[in-house]
Amino acid sequence: MSLPSGRVWSPVITPFTSALTPDPERFVTQCRWLIDNDVGLAVFGTNSEANSLSVDEKIALLDALVEGGIPADRMMPGTGACALPDAVALTRHAVAKGVEGVLMLPPFYYKGVSEEGLYRYYSEVIEQVDDRRLRIYVYHIPQVSQVPLTLALIERLIKAYPQHIVGVKDSSGDWSNTYAMIEQFAGDGFQVYAGSEHFLLQTLRAGGAGCISATANVNPRPIAALAKAWQGADADEQQAALTHTRSIFERFPMIPALKAAAARYSGAEDWAQVRPPLVALSGEQRKALHAELDAVSFDMPGLKHG
Amino acid sequence: MSLPSGRVWSPVITPFTSALTPDPERFVTQCRWLIDNDVGLAVFGTNSEANSLSVDEKIALLDALVEGGIPADRMMPGTGACALPDAVALTRHAVAKGVEGVLMLPPFYYKGVSEEGLYRYYSEVIEQVDDRRLRIYVYHIPQVSQVPLTLALIERLIKAYPQHIVGVKDSSGDWSNTYAMIEQFAGDGFQVYAGSEHFLLQTLRAGGAGCISATANVNPRPIAALAKAWQGADADEQQAALTHTRSIFERFPMIPALKAAAARYSGAEDWAQVRPPLVALSGEQRKALHAELDAVSFDMPGLKHG
Repeated sequence: MSLPSGRVWSPVITPFTSALTPDPERFVTQCRWLIDNDVGLAVFGTNSEANSLSVDEKIALLDALVEGGIPADRMMPGTGACALPDAVALTRHAVAKGVEGVLMLPPFYYKGVSEEGLYRYYSEVIEQVDDRRLRIYVYHIPQVSQVPLTLALIERLIKAYPQHIVGVKDSSGDWSNTYAMIEQFAGDGFQVYAGSEHFLLQTLRAGGAGCISATANVNPRPIAALAKAWQGADADEQQAALTHTRSIFERFPMIPALKAAAARYSGAEDWAQVRPPLVALSGEQRKALHAELDAVSFDMPGLKHG
Repeated sequence: MSLPSGRVWSPVITPFTSALTPDPERFVTQCRWLIDNDVGLAVFGTNSEANSLSVDEKIALLDALVEGGIPADRMMPGTGACALPDAVALTRHAVAKGVEGVLMLPPFYYKGVSEEGLYRYYSEVIEQVDDRRLRIYVYHIPQVSQVPLTLALIERLIKAYPQHIVGVKDSSGDWSNTYAMIEQFAGDGFQVYAGSEHFLLQTLRAGGAGCISATANVNPRPIAALAKAWQGADADEQQAALTHTRSIFERFPMIPALKAAAARYSGAEDWAQVRPPLVALSGEQRKALHAELDAVSFDMPGLKHG
C-alpha cells in the first residue's frame, strides 16, 4: 500500500553581494541544491527577505531560476505586497512562468483592517491576474504581518474561488489554529502547511500537507525524509532530531543565522550579507553558532561552491 | 515684531477611479486647493494610502503635480518603503524634482529589529541617493508601522548626517514623546512635527515646527490660521475649534471619512474610492458623517470641481 507523502518547502534565503544587490548565480546554485535535497522552493518568503526586495528584483531572480533550468513547478514564490499593483504584477509573472502556486501575504501596512477589506484584496488580485492556472496559498503570519487571516476569511475565499485558493501556510506557531484549519478545510483537498518542521509530524498525522520552514534552507534532506516516512516506526525519533537541529538556529536571529550557515558550508562568505533593517551575526555570534552546530556534527553536504 | 509661524502639511488623500487606478488630474486639483489654503503637500503619507501604491504610480503622480504647476518646494513626499531599492528610487526622483524634503518611514515588515538595523537603512538611503539637497524627515508612527524610532536612533542619525536628517513627524499621539523630541533636538533647528492638529498649539508653544495632519486634507485653512496666529489671544479658542472638527472625523475610519468628505464637497463621487485593504464608508456611515458635519456648518469652500 502506497502511503501519501508530506511536502516540504524552503523559503529560500536570498544571496546578496557586498554591495547589497541580489546575486542570481548563487541563488540558482542554492535552489538547485535544495531541489536535489527534496524540498520545494518557496522563494520570496519572510526568510528570503522578500519584502526587502523590489518587485523588479524578484522578477529578475525568478527569471534567473527558470533560465538556470530550475523547474517552475517546484516553485511557490511569495507574491503578496502592500500595494495591489505590486502583488498583481509579480503574481501574473510567476503564473506565466508556470509555478506550482504563489504564497500570498495580506497587505500589511494598515492594521486593524476588516475581513471585508482583506477579502477584496485577494479578490482583486484574482480578478486582475485572471488566469485559470493561478493557485494561491494564503499566508498567516500574524506576529510579523500584524494582519491575521481568520478562519472565516479563508472559508469565504475558498467558497468564492475554490479553483484559486488552494492552501494556507500557518506561521502563527499556534498549533490549535493549524489544527482548526486542517479540521475545517483539509477534507476537500485544501493544503494546510505548518510554518515550521517543529509541527511537521503533528500536521501530517492530522491530515495537513507538510511544512514550509526557514530551517529547510539548511537541513532540507532530514526534513524531507520525515515528510516521506511519517508513518514509519521511527517517525517520532526523526521529529525529535529535526526539532533539536531547529532549536540551535532559534537561539540566534533566524535569517542571519541561516545565512551564516550558508556562508560557512558553501565557502561563499557573501552569503552572510543581509539587507537592512536586518543585521548579520557578529563574529561572536557566528563562533557560538558554529560551536553548537559542530557539537551535533551538522553539515550541509554538497553545498560547497566552486 | 514678527513672530515665527508654524507650518502645516497635509498627507494628501490619493484619488482613485472606479477601476482603482490613480487619477492624476483630480490629484493636481486637490493639491492646488490645499496650497491655496496654506498647507503644504505631504503627498504619499499614511493617509494617502501610499503603501497601497506602487513606486511607479507614486513617481507618475509626483510628475503630474510638477507638470501641473504645483511648486515642488511645497512638497514633502513620503518615500520610505520596506525595500531599500524602492526607497532609494523614489527618494532620488523626489529630490531631483526639487521637493522641500521627504518623509521617511522605516522598513516596516520585520518587527523587533535593532536600532543598528534601522540606522543602516536610513544610512544606506542617504549614501545611495548621494545628493546634498536630500532633506529627510523621519516618520515615527509605531501604532501602524509597529517599528518605533527611538530618541537614541534619531540622535545618532542627526549626528551622522546633520545636513540630511532635518526633522521628524511624531504620529504616536504620545505628547510626552513629542515633547521629548522637541526638548532634545529642536534647539538646533531640527523640525519636530506633531502628527495631528490636536497637538498643534502645544507643539508650537514648546518650540516645535507645526503639524502634518490627516484632517488638514479637509480643514486646511483654519489649521493653517492657528499655525500663523498661535501667539494670539484667541489661540486656545482656535485650537478647541480645530480639535472639535477633527473629533468628528475620528469617529469614523479616518481615510474613508476624509475621502467621503472630499466626494461630497467636490461633487466628484469617485473621491470615495479606496484601495483594499481599506473599505469605503457605507451609505449609513456617510449619512451619519454628513449630519455631524452639517451640525457644525462644515464646508470645504472652493473645492467644487468642474
